Amino acid sequence: MDAIVVTRDDRQPRVVDRPRPEPGPGEALVRTLRVGVDGTDHEVVAGDHGGFPDGSDELVLGHEAVGVVADANGTGLTKGQVVVPTVRRPRGEPSSAFERGEADMAAPGDYVERGIDGAHGFMAEYFTSPADCLVPVPDDLADRGFLVEPISITEKALELAFASRSAFDWQPETALVLGNGSLGLLTLGMLDQRADFESLYCLGRRDRPDPTIDIVEELGATYVDSRETPVGEIPDAHEPADLVYEATGHARHAFETVEALAPNGVGALLGVPAGDWRFEVAGSDIHRQLVLQNKALVGSVNSNAGHFAAAVDTLAALPDWLLDDVVTSVHDLGDVQAAFRDDETTIKTALQFHSQ
Amino acid sequence: MDAIVVTRDDRQPRVVDRPRPEPGPGEALVRTLRVGVDGTDHEVVAGDHGGFPDGSDELVLGHEAVGVVADANGTGLTKGQVVVPTVRRPRGEPSSAFERGEADMAAPGDYVERGIDGAHGFMAEYFTSPADCLVPVPDDLADRGFLVEPISITEKALELAFASRSAFDWQPETALVLGNGSLGLLTLGMLDQRADFESLYCLGRRDRPDPTIDIVEELGATYVDSRETPVGEIPDAHEPADLVYEATGHARHAFETVEALAPNGVGALLGVPAGDWRFEVAGSDIHRQLVLQNKALVGSVNSNAGHFAAAVDTLAALPDWLLDDVVTSVHDLGDVQAAFRDDETTIKTALQFHSQ
Repeated sequence: MDAIVVTRDDRQPRVVDRPRPEPGPGEALVRTLRVGVDGTDHEVVAGDHGGFPDGSDELVLGHEAVGVVADANGTGLTKGQVVVPTVRRPRGEPSSAFERGEADMAAPGDYVERGIDGAHGFMAEYFTSPADCLVPVPDDLADRGFLVEPISITEKALELAFASRSAFDWQPETALVLGNGSLGLLTLGMLDQRADFESLYCLGRRDRPDPTIDIVEELGATYVDSRETPVGEIPDAHEPADLVYEATGHARHAFETVEALAPNGVGALLGVPAGDWRFEVAGSDIHRQLVLQNKALVGSVNSNAGHFAAAVDTLAALPDWLLDDVVTSVHDLGDVQAAFRDDETTIKTALQFHSQ
Repeated sequence: MDAIVVTRDDRQPRVVDRPRPEPGPGEALVRTLRVGVDGTDHEVVAGDHGGFPDGSDELVLGHEAVGVVADANGTGLTKGQVVVPTVRRPRGEPSSAFERGEADMAAPGDYVERGIDGAHGFMAEYFTSPADCLVPVPDDLADRGFLVEPISITEKALELAFASRSAFDWQPETALVLGNGSLGLLTLGMLDQRADFESLYCLGRRDRPDPTIDIVEELGATYVDSRETPVGEIPDAHEPADLVYEATGHARHAFETVEALAPNGVGALLGVPAGDWRFEVAGSDIHRQLVLQNKALVGSVNSNAGHFAAAVDTLAALPDWLLDDVVTSVHDLGDVQAAFRDDETTIKTALQFHSQ
């Protein structure tokens, strides 16, 4: 079968021929329909994030997949059923977090991530997975099912952020998304769906005309150009935010988030900064604001099957125009390079598989 | 009646004669028994925190009080009942946070704090207070009732910290308290009472022999000298902490807290740093740890009547030896200066009133 890999010697994604996997006990065989590409994939391809499976010089890419069950293998799933796989798997014996269904809270070292770190991903005509890591999706969402994984990331982050404010009567009205990539835009759409938020902002650093700014404004949100208005100045230039969602991975933003928050606000941090960057911060002011204004910062990574299930419902509720505009292209395997292109006209791409 | 004040011209606490206040509608008159002194009082005395009531050049000190109702004034309280006053009051019309009973979540500008900022405190033979700001205390806790306010501060901080981890199955085992002042030691005692924590640490910078280190060790906790083991090195030197409670107000500690946390851990920040201190941090590493290890920072200030009520129960449960050792002296009004002394043999002091 066809599979898309990077190798230690060749970091360019390419199609190779690999044997179709056989499902083991408790596993189903899934025929892949589509696999999305996101910023993490670009980091994996560049060698900035993740790693190869133990003993392998090759990694099958892809962690945002949707497929149909090709062989239920006695698992309770149904042949032909549309499913989305979760990403984390135990590294060795499952830790207690896995046993509780909270793979996303597993400690470093206790997990691999398919298509990212230590385990092959889903960019192949077929993949196998334990049935409890396959989340059912309605047939009519099959084409967009690869968006369930990124949406689940935000489901988890918002769950953590709201939980952090659950000890008091929090009534958020204003949200600020840092980052106008596909995750930022999907999150902006999700926040727009919630009754909580009357006022939405999205930070980027793009010049108009730009397709991401168009989406921000179509959602009724305000675009903030970080080159003109640094994060810490947003409260003065616009208004402070009850919720900040950080999806840039720019380390300064994690700290500036505190300055952008309204009293009692929370910043959800999702971007993963690379490297070893030390810099100066307004340390006593940030500390003082956190304490005297009851502010919080909550880091969030990955998501579990419960978040995937919530994401299926959210995907069904998001407006068609938003999903159409966020997914700028879907490519066949003959055009793999195009799926990994990342320019100013590209928001999100996916690869389409055609095996029957 | 006698009252302890600082004035704009004289920052030394001293006894002055002031008229006994008259309770207004909904208010009771309280005869003061004892008022504790804490780090905030020292900052107020030094002019580093808080401020005078509007139009006044004098502030009656004291926010950690216990007293008995001298005139219930038709409020539903009972004459002779022991009560502890909460600290925050509306500045002008009550904001929605006050109306919800969440004075501690009121926005800056919406409140004054008695004895601290903009309103006279409780260091006087009598004070008045709205009845709903007076929390009943059993008679046998009257002597120690001035500890209800500081304990309530930790009740709130722990409530916020645990709430922030309530979206998943958090099972904390290790806690680290930064600061061996009276609040840090009371908190260590409170954590010791909870079933959660098997392993406790307390950070200070004192040489042995030292009365605070004695308390730390009597509680079965491990004393960590910050001059030998910086906060960020505690995971390697000892173990990472599921919960960090920051009570030093040293701004670097707010950031180092992230490094001291175990995966999925939370840092509760309570210390209030002064000044405008900028410094370098390991920015990308702190950001990355927050995200990839699901860590959180939660700032917490003040406390509401619900936290005071919880603190009354906690005070009753704390061991006598701890409370005896934390309160190093109780002084009469003739010895006001001694109550405000702050040396290495002083942990916590209180002033005692003798009016009948």
